[in-house]
Amino acid sequence: MTKTLAPALAAGNRRPLADFAAKHFRWECRDRVAHITLSRPERKNPLSFESYAELRDLFEQLRFAHDVRAIVLAGEGGNFCSGGDVHEIIGPLIDLPAPELLMFTRMTGDLVKAMRHCPQPIVAAVDGVCAGAGAILAMASDLRYGTARSKTAFLFARVGLAGCDMGACAMLPRIVGQGRAAEWLYSGRSLGGEEAERWGFFNRLVEPEVLLDEATAFAQSLADGPAFAHSLTKSMLHHEWSMDIDSAIDAEAQAQALCMLTEDFGHAYRAFAAKAKPVFEGR
Amino acid sequence: MTKTLAPALAAGNRRPLADFAAKHFRWECRDRVAHITLSRPERKNPLSFESYAELRDLFEQLRFAHDVRAIVLAGEGGNFCSGGDVHEIIGPLIDLPAPELLMFTRMTGDLVKAMRHCPQPIVAAVDGVCAGAGAILAMASDLRYGTARSKTAFLFARVGLAGCDMGACAMLPRIVGQGRAAEWLYSGRSLGGEEAERWGFFNRLVEPEVLLDEATAFAQSLADGPAFAHSLTKSMLHHEWSMDIDSAIDAEAQAQALCMLTEDFGHAYRAFAAKAKPVFEGR
Amino acid sequence: MTKTLAPALAAGNRRPLADFAAKHFRWECRDRVAHITLSRPERKNPLSFESYAELRDLFEQLRFAHDVRAIVLAGEGGNFCSGGDVHEIIGPLIDLPAPELLMFTRMTGDLVKAMRHCPQPIVAAVDGVCAGAGAILAMASDLRYGTARSKTAFLFARVGLAGCDMGACAMLPRIVGQGRAAEWLYSGRSLGGEEAERWGFFNRLVEPEVLLDEATAFAQSLADGPAFAHSLTKSMLHHEWSMDIDSAIDAEAQAQALCMLTEDFGHAYRAFAAKAKPVFEGR
Repeated sequence: MTKTLAPALAAGNRRPLADFAAKHFRWECRDRVAHITLSRPERKNPLSFESYAELRDLFEQLRFAHDVRAIVLAGEGGNFCSGGDVHEIIGPLIDLPAPELLMFTRMTGDLVKAMRHCPQPIVAAVDGVCAGAGAILAMASDLRYGTARSKTAFLFARVGLAGCDMGACAMLPRIVGQGRAAEWLYSGRSLGGEEAERWGFFNRLVEPEVLLDEATAFAQSLADGPAFAHSLTKSMLHHEWSMDIDSAIDAEAQAQALCMLTEDFGHAYRAFAAKAKPVFEGR
Repeated sequence: MTKTLAPALAAGNRRPLADFAAKHFRWECRDRVAHITLSRPERKNPLSFESYAELRDLFEQLRFAHDVRAIVLAGEGGNFCSGGDVHEIIGPLIDLPAPELLMFTRMTGDLVKAMRHCPQPIVAAVDGVCAGAGAILAMASDLRYGTARSKTAFLFARVGLAGCDMGACAMLPRIVGQGRAAEWLYSGRSLGGEEAERWGFFNRLVEPEVLLDEATAFAQSLADGPAFAHSLTKSMLHHEWSMDIDSAIDAEAQAQALCMLTEDFGHAYRAFAAKAKPVFEGR
Repeated sequence: MTKTLAPALAAGNRRPLADFAAKHFRWECRDRVAHITLSRPERKNPLSFESYAELRDLFEQLRFAHDVRAIVLAGEGGNFCSGGDVHEIIGPLIDLPAPELLMFTRMTGDLVKAMRHCPQPIVAAVDGVCAGAGAILAMASDLRYGTARSKTAFLFARVGLAGCDMGACAMLPRIVGQGRAAEWLYSGRSLGGEEAERWGFFNRLVEPEVLLDEATAFAQSLADGPAFAHSLTKSMLHHEWSMDIDSAIDAEAQAQALCMLTEDFGHAYRAFAAKAKPVFEGR
């Protein structure tokens, strides 16, 4: 029934990543759910120039990875991510001229863009410190599980910088509202887990010892679901912010009609008729 | 004092609807508040191809209905709406080719557009099941009264489809925030009334036995208010999402100056001066 | 180290305002935090044609005021602002022709634009009555401290006008969400402090007797912070609502690279290395 994919089309657009060998963080993929784990726990998992670049390249490649359907982003050792390393990033930036600074900020922005453009939903699992660029990575994920003890801070103002970093002034107001985003970005203060959940930054609070399990379970449910449809949901959630609402409705009519031509739609209907649970293939 | 409306202008733009005879749902209009009641309670008020088309046509005609000033949208028998009927809609869609599928999704999107473009504020009264396209109809209303026992689910993912249905990826994030909308659409899960109120999806929770009365009372207060001004509020709330904020401020200056030329503005001022309650005429 | 500013450039773009002599409200500036206090407490601090114009002109001049770095907006005598005065504003408007009405609504809209375009963050301190145009001034501030007993009402509908006043249909949904904004604007109802905080309209609730102190303390922390960076945060929060998210990310890369070339960024890094608290100069 399934038509064959032209080999030349597949070669250029389907590249497996499950066995990717990461250098600057951990990467594991089980049952189509990839785990990206920031893994310098002794420093609360800071980012470096190298890990930024590798994350950007990886998320850009995920666009073609048909063997990865959902992503869990987490940190090792009870913290999520402490942001750009003071010694490895902030120090060197002090002396750079304008073109090289823009090279850096574009790289970080491109990481966020790649996270928003890859088809896989990203679930951030946030415990402990989630600061600076770490808070941005959580914000740039599709959804966020947190713990009560987590502390999320966009602390750019604390180091003399602006809150407009990696898309924060565009994305954070859309998640928590304009007033709360303004205060959070201006002040650089840490938000505890309960307040962050109340604001809609976290989707759920769970106990630290089950955080990774719960985030993984949700990511697995997405990976086992209609992955092609999920990828359109993600794409439209991103693009419709800059459409007028009528155009968005028209665009959705086309996207949903496309989904109605997928095998997954038929699977679901036939399973319903047979009072069975549908098995989705993601196409 | 009131100038006469040219008959030819009126004929083309003022068409009464209070006595509309609906075929696929109930329609009643009392004191300029119309009630649209989905009325197949034995199946939890599903939508069919016919009711979709009739709703779309009706909401498009409401643009010209000067005898209807507010709308209450509800379901019969303790449920709001179970969405597109599995047998009457999903089944037939399975076998349709692309152009006919787009015909269907455009029809559903056009219903949402018509709900957003008619001048009358729409109050959804949501009890029990509010699922799939039913959840969309609630979302596309101007505001929503709910009950604690209501269960609202955008369950497209459950049937292999995308969350981008009838404008959901544009409108839901603007109501509940981007993070919560993403999780709600990806998961297809049911949200109870209390959580939906906490997120801002419901404006109020009321007891099931007074739900319709409370929703009607609010709709009546709108119908008795400055209806022309309300219609501009509705229109601007819709269009300003895709304006830059400075342009929106300029557009509002023009809209509000227009309202200051209405009879209702004078009524309100004179009533205030006389320490009386203003009686609005809606023009 | 600091380069000298060309005198002709400074003359056209740096004009002190700390000693401004306001006619229709109180203005005080201490330690680079300006206090604007609406001060007709016997009438709950209404706005008049004169105070509107003076506020608009002042906020437009604040664009050039390098000696003011943050603003606290408050009212005298336990109320914030009762809005446009019924006798001094609404009465005269009743008889005006269209061009003069537009002159008025543009003036009020230009005040909001000037509040959003001046580089200084504005903290509204809201106690008691906060109504009509008063609610708009609170909404147009960057953030809001409130009290439990405060009552905030966009009561335009009560006087026969539309909710689309001075940008409310653009800005309020971005602060509290579309559903809540719609109900608030349509109904004209008063929101108590606790509900307004729950919705994200207020950033914090404090006791009335410490409201001004707390709002001033936060404004002082911003004035003592990286003021140039804060001004970019404010600007980007405003402009990014009408950018697509990818463009916003690119624009932020440029804005943040510029901040990395400021002296404040270097101050912060050197202070960190010396385990000291950074002293920001705002440039």
